[in-house]
Amino acid sequence: IDRQAADAARARQDQLTKPRGSLGRLEEMAIRLAGMQGTATPTPDPVRILQFVSDHGVSTEGVSLFPREVTLQMLHNIARGGAAVSVMAESIGAVMEIFDLGIATDPGPVAGVRSERLAPGTGNIAREPAMSDEQLARALDIGRAGVDRALDEGARLLICGEMGIGNTTPATALACALLGLEASILTGPGTGLDAQGVSRKAQVVATALELHARPEHGPLELLRRLGGFDIAASTGAFIRAAQRGLPILVDGFIISSAALVATRINPGVRDWMLFSHGSAEPGHRHMMEALDADPYLHLQMRLGEATGGAALVPLLRLACVVHQQMATFDEAGVSKG
Amino acid sequence: IDRQAADAARARQDQLTKPRGSLGRLEEMAIRLAGMQGTATPTPDPVRILQFVSDHGVSTEGVSLFPREVTLQMLHNIARGGAAVSVMAESIGAVMEIFDLGIATDPGPVAGVRSERLAPGTGNIAREPAMSDEQLARALDIGRAGVDRALDEGARLLICGEMGIGNTTPATALACALLGLEASILTGPGTGLDAQGVSRKAQVVATALELHARPEHGPLELLRRLGGFDIAASTGAFIRAAQRGLPILVDGFIISSAALVATRINPGVRDWMLFSHGSAEPGHRHMMEALDADPYLHLQMRLGEATGGAALVPLLRLACVVHQQMATFDEAGVSKG
Repeated sequence: IDRQAADAARARQDQLTKPRGSLGRLEEMAIRLAGMQGTATPTPDPVRILQFVSDHGVSTEGVSLFPREVTLQMLHNIARGGAAVSVMAESIGAVMEIFDLGIATDPGPVAGVRSERLAPGTGNIAREPAMSDEQLARALDIGRAGVDRALDEGARLLICGEMGIGNTTPATALACALLGLEASILTGPGTGLDAQGVSRKAQVVATALELHARPEHGPLELLRRLGGFDIAASTGAFIRAAQRGLPILVDGFIISSAALVATRINPGVRDWMLFSHGSAEPGHRHMMEALDADPYLHLQMRLGEATGGAALVPLLRLACVVHQQMATFDEAGVSKG
Repeated sequence: IDRQAADAARARQDQLTKPRGSLGRLEEMAIRLAGMQGTATPTPDPVRILQFVSDHGVSTEGVSLFPREVTLQMLHNIARGGAAVSVMAESIGAVMEIFDLGIATDPGPVAGVRSERLAPGTGNIAREPAMSDEQLARALDIGRAGVDRALDEGARLLICGEMGIGNTTPATALACALLGLEASILTGPGTGLDAQGVSRKAQVVATALELHARPEHGPLELLRRLGGFDIAASTGAFIRAAQRGLPILVDGFIISSAALVATRINPGVRDWMLFSHGSAEPGHRHMMEALDADPYLHLQMRLGEATGGAALVPLLRLACVVHQQMATFDEAGVSKG
């Protein structure tokens, strides 16, 4: 982080023709991006979305409203432009790279999708580790390589997204393990479970925690045992983004679990993160507290797919345009009060 | 409001390829606009901003951090593109009409500004009514005519903005009178007063209330006595917009006082209102409660000038694009769960 650039941006905000601080968190957005990008002219553009699609073994435990086939169906829908994130990415002018990290059924070649299949879904965390050491290493690498490609193509903001039926369950389990919280505290309805469904899901999370959450396990081992290919790839992407100085916009519940792992592995990663929105999934606020994060939007979103991140982009853009283009008191001949 | 169009929009949201309700308040934005516009394809575009600039007699009471000349200086700054709202309007592609409703010093002809001067500022509400009956009638008319011009030019969303040193004071007094609240409850720092300044301002508001707030006065008479040209023009604009079916996006503290007056004059106006943001000005939440409003953004903004409204426009746009362009479960061959 370039403290000088951040300080200069803050000083400029105080010279712009408005009462000091009156643009609130729009000022903060510009200042934080200026510090991360080391420039007086911060911008989120070009925005890169890495969309990680994969299946989760635990989906066979009845933890979601939707059947497992939906992951595959949604991969096609995302690639063909019909999913929420597809429409949003197009609308905000973001480039999206879509990954098949391991859907239960191999879709074969799909236009616009990178096939980086690690397995036909992860292991069922209620019975076994989500992945092997090798799969974990490869998932982290896929995320890293995605960031490197993004930077090669000029990206100035990274958003990771995910789609995978059942994936609030590993995200919940992983967060419980990292934060030392009971399953019942963090488990929520995901795509829309009723109270009975949530209770069943909490039981599945508790079983997974009993099996895998040991004090001797560090964050990487917990990620391997309780995570998913999507969460692991996002973790790798976040660590790499921080290493290479690419600002990260953290999306909702599942991606926040990756943000937690990444900051446990390397606390310095936190400095490179902005947080788009508070998810309607109730456990998300515990993750935000643990990350000392105060997300910008509170719109009861709970879709994933990077849609919360995408929704914040126009505001980041507005914050940066205002920062660059507003007149100062001197330029405009306005009295400072 | 076209309930059928709103219901159809809600039904469509439930068919889109996402868990039901998972886009949260983005869904609500599209549904509400669909109902107001009576269409399956709602959109905020073209956006029209009516920017009302005027002076307030009460500014001589030392209720603002900034000297009175700043209103005139900011008129030029807004017109020349240097103000926050100028940059935002350009960035979001909104057409802005700028009005001089009565700055203390007549600026003469200014490119891009409509001169509709009612007086060199309003009366000082701590000593006299803000305006005469005739001035009130003309201010309301100016707002109405602005809406008619906007509609002639195809506008589909109205935002009123204001700039005028000291104008949180009349807005506070007016809201106190309408809501039956003490000056000390609603008075806040405005552009940045310290505690002593706020206390002095609350005293000015209390004096104005003592002079003007009588049980026999209806909302129009309170507007005449305690308001401002900006607040009155916005009130006229809101009533006209509702009459002609133009959706209203209510900006921050000052404009919310106009929204209060408009809904007291005609409660049906409320149906045509969306609320952009919760202002950092503390009294704003009382206004929002009275309007049964739950604003979308909470970014600690407190600038006025329609900047909160402008900030929400990209999200309204995104909500509408998603509503129109996402695939349904049937179209995408995705299982509904």
